[in-house]
Amino acid sequence: MKTARIQLFRGPGRPFELSTAPLPETLNAGDVLVRISLATICGSDLHTTEGRRSAPLPCVLGHEAVGHVVASAREGVSAGQRVTWTLADSCGECAPCTRWSLPQKCEHLFKYGHAALDDGTGLNGCYADHIVLRRGTQVMSVPEILSDAVAAPANCALATIVNALEALPDACDRALVQGAGLLGIYACAWLKHRGVREVYCTDVSPERLAVAAQFGGIPVAAGDTPPQVDLVLEVTGVSAVVPAGVAALRPGGHYVWAGMVHPQTQLELTGEAVLRKCLTVRGVHNYAPRHLSLGLEFLAQNLHLPFEHLTSAPLPLERLDEGFELTRSRRWQRVAIQP
Amino acid sequence: MKTARIQLFRGPGRPFELSTAPLPETLNAGDVLVRISLATICGSDLHTTEGRRSAPLPCVLGHEAVGHVVASAREGVSAGQRVTWTLADSCGECAPCTRWSLPQKCEHLFKYGHAALDDGTGLNGCYADHIVLRRGTQVMSVPEILSDAVAAPANCALATIVNALEALPDACDRALVQGAGLLGIYACAWLKHRGVREVYCTDVSPERLAVAAQFGGIPVAAGDTPPQVDLVLEVTGVSAVVPAGVAALRPGGHYVWAGMVHPQTQLELTGEAVLRKCLTVRGVHNYAPRHLSLGLEFLAQNLHLPFEHLTSAPLPLERLDEGFELTRSRRWQRVAIQP
Repeated sequence: MKTARIQLFRGPGRPFELSTAPLPETLNAGDVLVRISLATICGSDLHTTEGRRSAPLPCVLGHEAVGHVVASAREGVSAGQRVTWTLADSCGECAPCTRWSLPQKCEHLFKYGHAALDDGTGLNGCYADHIVLRRGTQVMSVPEILSDAVAAPANCALATIVNALEALPDACDRALVQGAGLLGIYACAWLKHRGVREVYCTDVSPERLAVAAQFGGIPVAAGDTPPQVDLVLEVTGVSAVVPAGVAALRPGGHYVWAGMVHPQTQLELTGEAVLRKCLTVRGVHNYAPRHLSLGLEFLAQNLHLPFEHLTSAPLPLERLDEGFELTRSRRWQRVAIQP
Repeated sequence: MKTARIQLFRGPGRPFELSTAPLPETLNAGDVLVRISLATICGSDLHTTEGRRSAPLPCVLGHEAVGHVVASAREGVSAGQRVTWTLADSCGECAPCTRWSLPQKCEHLFKYGHAALDDGTGLNGCYADHIVLRRGTQVMSVPEILSDAVAAPANCALATIVNALEALPDACDRALVQGAGLLGIYACAWLKHRGVREVYCTDVSPERLAVAAQFGGIPVAAGDTPPQVDLVLEVTGVSAVVPAGVAALRPGGHYVWAGMVHPQTQLELTGEAVLRKCLTVRGVHNYAPRHLSLGLEFLAQNLHLPFEHLTSAPLPLERLDEGFELTRSRRWQRVAIQP
């Protein structure tokens, strides 16, 4: 029996455990077995390894990746194809999947990198050399022009930004991006791509702001205020930035919240502030398949931007602990793991 | 020189003062002089008379009314016409008026019932027998089929609801209206008119809920929870209802805030709650001319509903203090004043 190499997560504060799991000998209808070429460490995995978010134990973490199809039980997907995939596996039949256009809120949702080892084949995460994609997961070809390092974060960070910024206000000349992490950097580039004339960016780190500037963001130093904007995007994860976001918006402006994914986000905000300015606030979590597909197209059209420099040189799978250490250091927007 | 009879507001806690003001002998281009047939007392005027909102002193309050044109310096508007009008006078040229489709946030906004006696002719409010409408105010014919009592509150309460509920979520089968004042009652009727299958309504007062039921609302007693809904409308003015509204919404649902027009509306809400459920929150304040026009059409199409019963028998202008007393008693949704 052939086996896959996996890194097992056994709980916060414990090192990863290099292990193996059997590769499936046959695939269920719709399943696709993928050999992972490159995975990137998403900031959200730090929440798990540092104990702020719970995970079933043991499990294989990791959800941002690119790979090659090894075996396919799905029409239209063939061995050898270079692919990425939606991080949500959705049933396609419930109300969120059909009437509400929110497959990421499927009533039978399965998310890669968040499932127990005894769920299915156990090959449910990207810190491994193989993963089994399920029938409700959209599998997409990665354009040849995109390197693994550029394509890997598309299926989480970039697709979320595409979702957050798919609908812009009718008049959208100026925007403010709060946060210059990977999501904020993608947001600057995406908004410029969409024709927004001025894209301001704020962050506590001048180094991060300098990176955002390479992607079209106009850095706004701490304490400075940008001019009145049509759109604000929150990707800081910190609710303390919300009053500044509301203050920056023009009447009728849109505020998109995509970073505050944890409960310590009590708002310092009155209903009146939202009401009198006629603001629209949109909460965005994850994305639908079209957003990943639009994200891949966007990357292929914007390779003049230094996306390549956002990701570290790859570390081998066995050095995953070191990869997490490097992620914590914030030296890179993404640390790459190559199984 | 002919004069108009006006009720002067001289500050919170002081009785109104019956007075006169000269009627203009000539009108500025675009102006329309109207003799008021019936005015209704909007709850927001209580904020002013009770000192929660400031007003320039002295002034003529009142902004909900119907009247007949006495003289017109505007093409398309003629003497004798029975009319209502937008409560905002907008320049038509600034960014809010043009690019943002928010004439109610005009950079040169003038609002009837909120302007000083020495502003223009001084005939700026509806607790008077005449009012001068300015060139940036939309003046509309009132359908003959609508009585004064039914039409008068259209230009504030109803038009605001039409604005709040013009755009509904793609799938909108069930809604929850928080608050069974006049705005909530209009909302129940409007949502049924728009084809929403189940419209739930909450309020602290069982009497008000019984009225809402006559307009299509399904009363939800305090402490009970309605089923998961696609849309929630807040028209209570109380931010304490927001957590219940968020809890009632399905993923991807819309929450419209139209009642919290004062600063004591600190929210008990996390960014995460809005984000994870992928909610859209829309603040709505006042309205644009098309909303008033749609509101008048809606009334004319729904005269099987007991709109007539929402307004008190009219009191004469000199009994305005009594009208405010009656408004405070909440016996009627609106108290009518007939100059």
